Amino acid sequence: MSNTTVESVLSKVNTPDDVKKLSIAEMNTLADEMREYIITKVNTTGGHFGPNLGIIEATIALHYVFNSPKDKFVFDVSHQCYPHKILTGRKEGFTNPEKYNTFTGYTAPEESEHDLFKVGHTSTSVSLATGVAKARDLKGETGNVIALIGDGSLSGGEAYEGLNNAAVLGSNMIIIVNDNEMSIAENQGGYYKNLEELRRTNGKAECNIFKAMGFDYLYVEEGNNVESLISAFSKIKDSTHPVVVHIHTEKGHGCDAALANKEGFHWIMPGTLDSVNETQAPQGESYTSITTDYILEKAKKDPKVFTITPATPGAYGYSEDFRNKLGKQYVDVGIAEEHAVAFASAAASQGAKPILQVLSSFIQRTYDQLSQDLCLNNSPATILISWGAISGADATHLQVFDIPMMSNIPNLVYLAPTNKEEYLAMLDWSVEQTSHPVAIRVPFGEVVSTGVEDKTNYSLLNKFKMAEQGSEVAIIGLGNFFGLGQRVKESLKSSLGIDATLINPCYITGLDEEMLEGLKQNHKVVITLEDGVLDGGFGEKITRFYGNSDIKVLNFGAKKEFTDRVPLDGLYERYHLREDLIVEDIKKCL
Amino acid sequence: MSNTTVESVLSKVNTPDDVKKLSIAEMNTLADEMREYIITKVNTTGGHFGPNLGIIEATIALHYVFNSPKDKFVFDVSHQCYPHKILTGRKEGFTNPEKYNTFTGYTAPEESEHDLFKVGHTSTSVSLATGVAKARDLKGETGNVIALIGDGSLSGGEAYEGLNNAAVLGSNMIIIVNDNEMSIAENQGGYYKNLEELRRTNGKAECNIFKAMGFDYLYVEEGNNVESLISAFSKIKDSTHPVVVHIHTEKGHGCDAALANKEGFHWIMPGTLDSVNETQAPQGESYTSITTDYILEKAKKDPKVFTITPATPGAYGYSEDFRNKLGKQYVDVGIAEEHAVAFASAAASQGAKPILQVLSSFIQRTYDQLSQDLCLNNSPATILISWGAISGADATHLQVFDIPMMSNIPNLVYLAPTNKEEYLAMLDWSVEQTSHPVAIRVPFGEVVSTGVEDKTNYSLLNKFKMAEQGSEVAIIGLGNFFGLGQRVKESLKSSLGIDATLINPCYITGLDEEMLEGLKQNHKVVITLEDGVLDGGFGEKITRFYGNSDIKVLNFGAKKEFTDRVPLDGLYERYHLREDLIVEDIKKCL
Repeated sequence: MSNTTVESVLSKVNTPDDVKKLSIAEMNTLADEMREYIITKVNTTGGHFGPNLGIIEATIALHYVFNSPKDKFVFDVSHQCYPHKILTGRKEGFTNPEKYNTFTGYTAPEESEHDLFKVGHTSTSVSLATGVAKARDLKGETGNVIALIGDGSLSGGEAYEGLNNAAVLGSNMIIIVNDNEMSIAENQGGYYKNLEELRRTNGKAECNIFKAMGFDYLYVEEGNNVESLISAFSKIKDSTHPVVVHIHTEKGHGCDAALANKEGFHWIMPGTLDSVNETQAPQGESYTSITTDYILEKAKKDPKVFTITPATPGAYGYSEDFRNKLGKQYVDVGIAEEHAVAFASAAASQGAKPILQVLSSFIQRTYDQLSQDLCLNNSPATILISWGAISGADATHLQVFDIPMMSNIPNLVYLAPTNKEEYLAMLDWSVEQTSHPVAIRVPFGEVVSTGVEDKTNYSLLNKFKMAEQGSEVAIIGLGNFFGLGQRVKESLKSSLGIDATLINPCYITGLDEEMLEGLKQNHKVVITLEDGVLDGGFGEKITRFYGNSDIKVLNFGAKKEFTDRVPLDGLYERYHLREDLIVEDIKKCL
Repeated sequence: MSNTTVESVLSKVNTPDDVKKLSIAEMNTLADEMREYIITKVNTTGGHFGPNLGIIEATIALHYVFNSPKDKFVFDVSHQCYPHKILTGRKEGFTNPEKYNTFTGYTAPEESEHDLFKVGHTSTSVSLATGVAKARDLKGETGNVIALIGDGSLSGGEAYEGLNNAAVLGSNMIIIVNDNEMSIAENQGGYYKNLEELRRTNGKAECNIFKAMGFDYLYVEEGNNVESLISAFSKIKDSTHPVVVHIHTEKGHGCDAALANKEGFHWIMPGTLDSVNETQAPQGESYTSITTDYILEKAKKDPKVFTITPATPGAYGYSEDFRNKLGKQYVDVGIAEEHAVAFASAAASQGAKPILQVLSSFIQRTYDQLSQDLCLNNSPATILISWGAISGADATHLQVFDIPMMSNIPNLVYLAPTNKEEYLAMLDWSVEQTSHPVAIRVPFGEVVSTGVEDKTNYSLLNKFKMAEQGSEVAIIGLGNFFGLGQRVKESLKSSLGIDATLINPCYITGLDEEMLEGLKQNHKVVITLEDGVLDGGFGEKITRFYGNSDIKVLNFGAKKEFTDRVPLDGLYERYHLREDLIVEDIKKCL
């Protein structure tokens, strides 16, 4: 940003009030400046790219027309809140490289009074805004409540439940549908036919899903034009009833690379723009490639095999090529995790072989579907849970609750492979068997390989593997933390001379009571290691098993808490998830 | 059923094939006979009444036109499956009083090849049917897949996610919207404006939410006329693309009492019809009346207090009178538990005081909303969980999973009152405090009253109450099971001469480490009692606390399993939830 004239507008803007003083021309300049800063910042740190570039003009117009924080903005999933952060006192997080990591990538009430909620899962804004409006009405206050929701988020059931209720609220409620014709990937589903029809007719189509529900409706074709947006928002400001403003924006607006690859530029890694024209070097083997290779091969052999994603194909390496190869054996159901589970369950019950892949954080959206649609019906679907691990993630995207949430549901077989061969054996067993709903916690991190095919019969449920028979101390290392278990064993040997027993439990959802009983013979201490929250998790069940015995049990895992971008090392130290700390704890029991 | 001519039709019908041989006149007679049997049977055993009476003609028409089980019916929530059961080999369950309890009140694959899924929670049919259709397509098979969904169920997000995906399935998928203008209670939300408009225009309204999503659409005004229904179903049979058939039926059709009180006759207790004209004797005090009395009084004093129900007002004693008195301080959000939680959270975050009441079984529909919308934002909403207890319920309506599901979510304060005074104190504390999301497990069963106002300050989180200080054995009796704890204490005294310690933990979501530590001094055994599933529950956390000590811990509660109408005594025996069995178990540890 070398031109000082250009720079002058953003330099004057520190609060929403400053936006109100600008001319249209100045706001256009402001948009250009913000766009350049966002591009530079996100290309440096990584983050949500296309959605933020598309919503700059609308954010300026919102702050020009409305009066935050008296008027209240609720951002859906908040993949598009960077422009809002820039205009609400947090621009240094974008203009000053030293401050790049000061603010979260999501709305965060602790950062600003202009942010109402901590949000990172989709489809919640309309529900939340309806609650905000209801509180306003009960308190006898005034002001606008504005939900900003992307077209992609509209496929989530919670969004629809919110719309259904918002429509009959009977007071001010403004829902801005930010239609950039994309979810993270392509939009999926019947809803999008109507959005398309509305865009095609400049909002005039008689058949209008929003009007059908009772909303007033306004269409803005030029969703990246500040003037058009200001005009539209001004019309519905202080509306006394619920209204939908449908704005047609462009994901990645103002950045050619992002426009050319809207899905790839939804969220980017640092430096993506710099290497956009470079040929990607072939990536090494990863649990992602192992999974996609398996699915492609299996699906080719068996037309009943198909894979399902709830709108997050990129997270699993489901490339264009992968999707094309699978054809009808690939289904993106839209952002609709609940449906995805029921859909998979029903298909499995009829002899198809669905593989549903979901991130640990997003499987949270499906407890009742796992329980009622899947497990109560004992449907032999396969669910792959990815990224399940303690991490330095944002509080909205922690991946540590899947074990407590899932493993206490009857009938589910939840497996925790510890290496590539085990993972492939479990995956193939799951796809081929017809007796149980099965989930697999895909290993996280570097690929571990034994080089030896795993021929275990996983139909013998809850049979733990005795990796190394020892005495005095037994280490039960679940999934990702089997490696930690190995290190603890080595450390016990070197520091205390103990030949510990090492066990790979494989099953998260049941105990090998025979093996556990056997440990009583010559062990004093049993420790459990799990890469997730301890409360309600795997280790506590082991402890309960030994509750009436003389065995001492120590459970290692994460504390029940929402951590927020805490470096992994710090979390491992906090939770004693290091071999030296674990050995210290064991010592106290001996 | 005295007239043998009338009886002759049903007597000839044992399978769907028999229906196909009937004339329209015979089918009308069949409908009359089925109606009379259903009325008599349900008035004897209790069960879903109005929904079943409304769908008799449609069920006959479905079996006349389609070929189950090759064509596949998926019933939403299956509140309306009795006519289907009668026509698919299970009529004795309705005609023979001795067989009245042979079959479940829901679809059940173990009973018949004509039932695809065990279903008792709403809004799942479209998703399940889409999965069935997908499996059919992948297997290269043919046949119709038919989802039958009530208008009430359409407000649930999962239904909408399913519709969104079904619309683009690209093959046969028939969705019958059974519009009886009612949910359990009145329908709520914008969606219903469109259904109303479609009924008003005989299906011809241009603005049509189903057409908007890409479905073909057919309207049947006379939804209780077999001939009209057969004509409509015949038109869309073997459709090669997704179609919605919107049928206008009458809830309680053919029964005056049910027509006069559609909500009251959604589900009835045994004998309801016989006493329909009797004045209800005033009911004694119950936790239901305690709750409604509290809400009414509180709401009168404070306009910021309001109560929310997700379409199940009857379950909580929210009568017409109660709703009228509350006015705008009462919100029925429709069947939309996810929205209900987000809505409550947002309102609480803005200073309103929402009280959301949900059955234990249905709070299962909201894990991610509890986690992300509520707890991550630390919004001080109050959630009342009702009916949480081990019971002889149907597998679809177990109320034992709320503790594992909810209590492992950070920030939530989940309370377990043991009597009326404690419940009221916790409830009022929760409504007034502004620091925590709070859930209260409403006591289940007879009211227990101490007669002494509870003045505990519940802001001192996780402070257990020492009810009686003893030694050797400590009994921690949670919520409903505090009474069982008292009986165990008495039994330990009388049979073993032990003066046991008795503790009321109050908090499900945290431990009183100081008190637990203190027990180590003069106790050998600690037992925990909880009225729910043990896995992931309360007791395991106590066990984990004592894992590295010499204290023995026994956890009593339900096993992780889906039980199905098992009498409560049997479950208590199975789980050792009787004082004699518990004392036996304790003896083994001493």
